[in-house]
Amino acid sequence: MLDVIETITAKRDGRALSDTAIRSLISAYARGLVPDYQMSAFLMAAFLKGLSTRETTALTDCMLQSGIVLDFSGISGAKVDKHSTGGVGDKISLVLAPMAAACQVRVPMISGRALGHTGGTLDKLESIPGFSTDVDLARMRQQLGDLGVVMLGQTEEIAPADGLLYALRDVTATVDFIPFITASIMSKKLAEGLDGLVLDVKTGRGAFMKTRAAARDLAEMLVLLGEKFGVSTVAWLTNMDTPLGFKIGNWLEVEESIDCLTGCGPADVVSLSVQLCGEMLVLAKRADTVKQGKEIAQESIDSGRAFESLLNLVAAQGGDVSVIEHPSKRKRTVEPEPVCAPDHARGFVSDLDAFQLGLAATEMGTGRFTKEDEVDPEAGIVLHKRPGDAVIPNEELATFYTRKRALREQFAQTIRNAYSFKAKAPAAGNILIDRLSAEGWTHRS
Amino acid sequence: MLDVIETITAKRDGRALSDTAIRSLISAYARGLVPDYQMSAFLMAAFLKGLSTRETTALTDCMLQSGIVLDFSGISGAKVDKHSTGGVGDKISLVLAPMAAACQVRVPMISGRALGHTGGTLDKLESIPGFSTDVDLARMRQQLGDLGVVMLGQTEEIAPADGLLYALRDVTATVDFIPFITASIMSKKLAEGLDGLVLDVKTGRGAFMKTRAAARDLAEMLVLLGEKFGVSTVAWLTNMDTPLGFKIGNWLEVEESIDCLTGCGPADVVSLSVQLCGEMLVLAKRADTVKQGKEIAQESIDSGRAFESLLNLVAAQGGDVSVIEHPSKRKRTVEPEPVCAPDHARGFVSDLDAFQLGLAATEMGTGRFTKEDEVDPEAGIVLHKRPGDAVIPNEELATFYTRKRALREQFAQTIRNAYSFKAKAPAAGNILIDRLSAEGWTHRS
Repeated sequence: MLDVIETITAKRDGRALSDTAIRSLISAYARGLVPDYQMSAFLMAAFLKGLSTRETTALTDCMLQSGIVLDFSGISGAKVDKHSTGGVGDKISLVLAPMAAACQVRVPMISGRALGHTGGTLDKLESIPGFSTDVDLARMRQQLGDLGVVMLGQTEEIAPADGLLYALRDVTATVDFIPFITASIMSKKLAEGLDGLVLDVKTGRGAFMKTRAAARDLAEMLVLLGEKFGVSTVAWLTNMDTPLGFKIGNWLEVEESIDCLTGCGPADVVSLSVQLCGEMLVLAKRADTVKQGKEIAQESIDSGRAFESLLNLVAAQGGDVSVIEHPSKRKRTVEPEPVCAPDHARGFVSDLDAFQLGLAATEMGTGRFTKEDEVDPEAGIVLHKRPGDAVIPNEELATFYTRKRALREQFAQTIRNAYSFKAKAPAAGNILIDRLSAEGWTHRS
Repeated sequence: MLDVIETITAKRDGRALSDTAIRSLISAYARGLVPDYQMSAFLMAAFLKGLSTRETTALTDCMLQSGIVLDFSGISGAKVDKHSTGGVGDKISLVLAPMAAACQVRVPMISGRALGHTGGTLDKLESIPGFSTDVDLARMRQQLGDLGVVMLGQTEEIAPADGLLYALRDVTATVDFIPFITASIMSKKLAEGLDGLVLDVKTGRGAFMKTRAAARDLAEMLVLLGEKFGVSTVAWLTNMDTPLGFKIGNWLEVEESIDCLTGCGPADVVSLSVQLCGEMLVLAKRADTVKQGKEIAQESIDSGRAFESLLNLVAAQGGDVSVIEHPSKRKRTVEPEPVCAPDHARGFVSDLDAFQLGLAATEMGTGRFTKEDEVDPEAGIVLHKRPGDAVIPNEELATFYTRKRALREQFAQTIRNAYSFKAKAPAAGNILIDRLSAEGWTHRS
């Protein structure tokens, strides 16, 4: 028998919950038998009193078991996915999924939408005219077998308890809690029937985990959970103080992803994609070392196979292949707005605030502030200057695109304010910080 | 503008809330503009992170202002009430309200129903055939002016936010929290338009505050709040390890109250009633000292005026006065069941567990386990032996009354188990423990 009040009381008083207690609570909640007001009291008690690794494992497992757990063992080859905790200009999934598939890894990628100041892979994919991310599980299996890659949105069959809990956490100030974040991410990823998982745990002002310590804690919990469920898991801590690449926005990021896959992408996006692809190849046993995996990944770009994989993916999911082959063919309906460097901008760009740019881009239409907001595929920011670039007053720093013409001045000001300038060039930063696997932490290789 | 999530977040992070933030939250909740699931997250955050005296004052004030605040300034004489935090066999209100009225104190007493293992004044009053506790505010005012005493149930016009919050606390494990208990008690008592308030804060296994420390903390918060709202407040910490008097049950307690008011009540019930009446008389400026107040109270019993006051009260609220004058006239439909002392009971009753007796009595029908349960006016327990009484094996310890005949053996066993026996007589305990007023704590006088 489920005694919800007893479970809330136990957690409120800091007692450890049995697997049975957690399982009863979550499964009853998922079936509508526990009201939201009791669940939110539980969420707050857990937030403030903590959940152990054992409790987080039980929570993840119930959330996973609340829906269908896919089994792709009938499809040959290793199934490996990547998940990012979200950043600004983070188009890595768009580059990586077709690239890994081109390297003989099966990628059954279920992604999310824009959240807060960060973009969403689904919104980016849907900026490709005709592209559908609404793929049922039968078609998912079919395409994974045929092409080796499928990119779709969360369906109601996958971890439905997570959807319910996330909506409740969002309105009860219980989002920022590592055990909940872990259970939410892993319940969905573990449902994909994976052999391996690579995690890109972002840290810095443009990430949800602002401090490196919090990001490390999250990475540790994620890797621990993956391994507990029998999925080989590797996490990279990566820097999200400044945006990834030059472009922020839905279609803009598709454009930049095409650049990456055709060999002319920005170094940071390409190197992070190749690094994570190298990890995926090792997890898929397609390479013995990450170094070898990176070479295979780079070769997939150089040979054109990675780009071809993207074309096949777009075609298979109903997208207009011609705009992928010739991005300039995609009709532009929003006028560009320039942002020029201020008078004091002499020397170099010393810093660029990803969080402010992410917020501004969301406001321009790349993301949502409420569930009802529609995203604008064309909205966003193109950076012409990034940290380390030389700059002189009045030089163009960035271009932005928005339908909210009344806010143009405000957007220009926000973008300008996101830049810092110094007379001396800053030291080059590195996106890759630390790597965590079941063997523990290792520093940037 | 009300930002509920911001208020929840602030409390979750242990920050102090402004009066405005608390006021916005509670008033929006009372108007149905904040969903239960957000309020319960707030309740749990407050439970775990604490509320300061200032925050508790603001909370109490909003709950008070959510309904009508009575103003009896048009009625001459001081208005003073008593509130007990609840115990087993606690019929003090039934004795005290008419007694204080007989001593020229105006008593506008709004009471509650049985809660958990404790009895409720309303349920006891309603065991008097015809007695109505459903009194509207106009009639309340009229009777308070005419008789000096009126005893009624909570109406929807008094502190409606408390009713909503209490129901939510009850199902989210956020009941046992002194700021919430204080706000709940005081928002209702302050609505009575009082000049003075006497609090009977019970402590011990038969009370809700099991430890003396918790009871002292509650008493301190209650007195502080009363004084902050301009109501002279005195609190007595009283012992609730063993039941008050010989009788537990609705009509049974009315019978014992009649005994007290006609000069033949048990010493513990009479002395506590007289003590609290003495306090009320001082607060009402009808006596200079508590000692003098107690003498006036005792005289009201000796002269028969206190009993006459009860008769008038019962008549005014539609009750059958003949059963008050001759309690044996009330028809008994439930057979008495004896409980005999076990073989090892040689010497004295050394202890008697009020909590076990309270639970058993509730099960017999004196109270409710769910809102839908109906109380039985006749159910209950009559103790023949109490701590300090000599006992021999097989002697009758108690009699109980219940319609649940199938459970007779179990009830007899529970009552027997509530007794402890020792060869030597135990030291006599005292019900009155400590006294708290605006001047601070003083020990038993």
